[in-house]
Amino acid sequence: MLCGMQAHDGPLTRLRKSHEQSVLDLLRKHGPLSRAELGAHSGLSRTTLYDIVAGLVEGGTVVASTPPAEVRRRGRPVEKLSLNPQAGEAIGIDFARRAVHVSAVNVAHEMLGSASEAHPPDLTWTQRTDIAQRLLGSLGGPARGSRGGPLRLGSLSAIGVGIVGPIAEGARAPGPEPLAALLRERFGVPVLVDNNTRLAALAEAVWGAACDGGDVVYLRLSHGVGGGLVVGGSLHRGTDGMSGEFGHITVDARGAPCECGGTGCLETVASLDAVLARYRSAGGSAPDVPAFLDAAAAGDRTARSVLERVGRDVGRVLAAVCNAIGPGVLVVGGELAQAGPALVEPVERALHAHVMPRVRDRVHVRLATLGEAGSALGGIALVLHESPLLSRYPPPVAQEHA
Amino acid sequence: MLCGMQAHDGPLTRLRKSHEQSVLDLLRKHGPLSRAELGAHSGLSRTTLYDIVAGLVEGGTVVASTPPAEVRRRGRPVEKLSLNPQAGEAIGIDFARRAVHVSAVNVAHEMLGSASEAHPPDLTWTQRTDIAQRLLGSLGGPARGSRGGPLRLGSLSAIGVGIVGPIAEGARAPGPEPLAALLRERFGVPVLVDNNTRLAALAEAVWGAACDGGDVVYLRLSHGVGGGLVVGGSLHRGTDGMSGEFGHITVDARGAPCECGGTGCLETVASLDAVLARYRSAGGSAPDVPAFLDAAAAGDRTARSVLERVGRDVGRVLAAVCNAIGPGVLVVGGELAQAGPALVEPVERALHAHVMPRVRDRVHVRLATLGEAGSALGGIALVLHESPLLSRYPPPVAQEHA
Repeated sequence: MLCGMQAHDGPLTRLRKSHEQSVLDLLRKHGPLSRAELGAHSGLSRTTLYDIVAGLVEGGTVVASTPPAEVRRRGRPVEKLSLNPQAGEAIGIDFARRAVHVSAVNVAHEMLGSASEAHPPDLTWTQRTDIAQRLLGSLGGPARGSRGGPLRLGSLSAIGVGIVGPIAEGARAPGPEPLAALLRERFGVPVLVDNNTRLAALAEAVWGAACDGGDVVYLRLSHGVGGGLVVGGSLHRGTDGMSGEFGHITVDARGAPCECGGTGCLETVASLDAVLARYRSAGGSAPDVPAFLDAAAAGDRTARSVLERVGRDVGRVLAAVCNAIGPGVLVVGGELAQAGPALVEPVERALHAHVMPRVRDRVHVRLATLGEAGSALGGIALVLHESPLLSRYPPPVAQEHA
Repeated sequence: MLCGMQAHDGPLTRLRKSHEQSVLDLLRKHGPLSRAELGAHSGLSRTTLYDIVAGLVEGGTVVASTPPAEVRRRGRPVEKLSLNPQAGEAIGIDFARRAVHVSAVNVAHEMLGSASEAHPPDLTWTQRTDIAQRLLGSLGGPARGSRGGPLRLGSLSAIGVGIVGPIAEGARAPGPEPLAALLRERFGVPVLVDNNTRLAALAEAVWGAACDGGDVVYLRLSHGVGGGLVVGGSLHRGTDGMSGEFGHITVDARGAPCECGGTGCLETVASLDAVLARYRSAGGSAPDVPAFLDAAAAGDRTARSVLERVGRDVGRVLAAVCNAIGPGVLVVGGELAQAGPALVEPVERALHAHVMPRVRDRVHVRLATLGEAGSALGGIALVLHESPLLSRYPPPVAQEHA
């Protein structure tokens, strides 16, 4: 069907292209969908949709497959449609404070691989980009280039990058120089940059703990305390990129000074350093966070009591956010979330005490499921959702075949 | 142009209709726009837009006008386009606890009138609807019917209704019966129902203190304390309609029990009753809220100190909401907002102490500008933004002319 396009499209062709674009956009954002799901999302009539899909499958842009028998429910297998996995990959890179994480996914939402490497703090962007390139080279999917040389990414690919700190303009901005320029030069593809905690929120919404829908509040308890909001399936960035700053909601107006310049922010009591410091000042002994978590898991009463206290403050902040926004799902991630129920239970108790009673039974905390790969996967989700390049997908195949 | 439509439209006509619909939707939502503004919002090319607009003006669906000389800036007057004001009116009704407010606006966003009537609490919906109908009959624009009989509203009209309490399903739900059914029967037009505080938020975003754009956090300090969020120009309702519940964010975990079942909610310290009670317990004497506000305005130190304390709690809650959402504008309304700077200054002090320092200079509180008409106007905004009927506008004029 695509082959029939004219160089100068008439209105009929434009209308068809617009329908095709809707279908392709949906598959790019959601991954594999059944025809019924495509129909519900696109609003196209059954006849139009089947015709459009047939054309896209015939042209090879879209592929159809049935899930393996063992994962199927009863009845006839439902065919799923997805973008042709060979049409391109998206790469996600998370430049965390002391580590680089990379992931690669193709446009059919198939995971190609993830890799991570810790590094000393204060590396230059060039050094960190070298690490990212080496890690990408080690992955199966996109590792078509020679080590050290530029990767030969598919022509449709883009890179989504997470970095520490606020990104005022959101993903459509060129990103903080010189990082974006460096990456564009190195990989020869468009680069979208956003805050890495926000990207972790998007990833949990698309592939992780919150993938079953609804608006998402994501809180990360790590060296810093931050978060992200996903509203209507998209990142909510806020004015000047200042949304999701749950770590700087005040929990004690007479509390400790915070790095942000404020006082008694959640971060001053719930960051990893703050938690360790409280544990030690209560007589506990742990050289680092894993040791503290081990102690808590082993039933150390001091560690449990510290988590109880932290959980109460976290729950109060989440309750305030719930009352303000009314999210569908609350997700807690970051290293401290590995404490599991010892943290989540006090969080939920405080949450339920302070959230509107009408929604108390409905509001639960889920643990993040994507771990340290979350932000890199979020970079990919950003590319699949927002890349201006991919939104013009498919490329001018028509001309080639004409 | 519309006259040329066929009964069974071909793709060309459908494409043109889709462009026309974009233009009409924009004019319906935004009110009068210049061609340049229409172009920026619609994304249509200059040529296409001028052609579409010419057709709509020729058919009488859209009218062009230039603003009066005295409000113009220098240079050539810019022609504004709007929907034909005769094409229909939208009616807003706010059923507050002890009053009914009505407003009428035509589809060109011209205000036709507003009216209010206080009533005893606990009237039936029928009694309150009688009041609304009488008030609407007293307005110039829609008062085409005889008093007491059904109003003969234009065929395009719909009614947006605000009521007290949460509306789980949002405006597209049939609304709480029997009110929605009663109104539909009485007026013979579609009825959209939403929470009246949320509608006041939407009205401030469209016509009031926040009409210059950005996401809006609206807080109403009245007999209850509530609010609303406008995100990306639309009401953000939250799961089960539970967003904007700023009055139930905890300000003191050891505070007074709240009507909601919680403890120490903002409403327990910032509702009108709570403020009066605090004033009296501090030795002040005021029979009602206006007397309290008069005392504060006259410099009564006890009243000022009460407002200082309330303002601090309000500011803290707004800071938490700001850190979570990153809104563009904060608006405070309700009777207590009439205290003006005596309230706003302590609110801003607390807000600035608890919001992320990076945005401190940018975050200011504005007073609501629409007063008691706000929720009724919000009902109208809801109709203009979301009515499924109006989204099919224009009606089948084509067939009539064919």
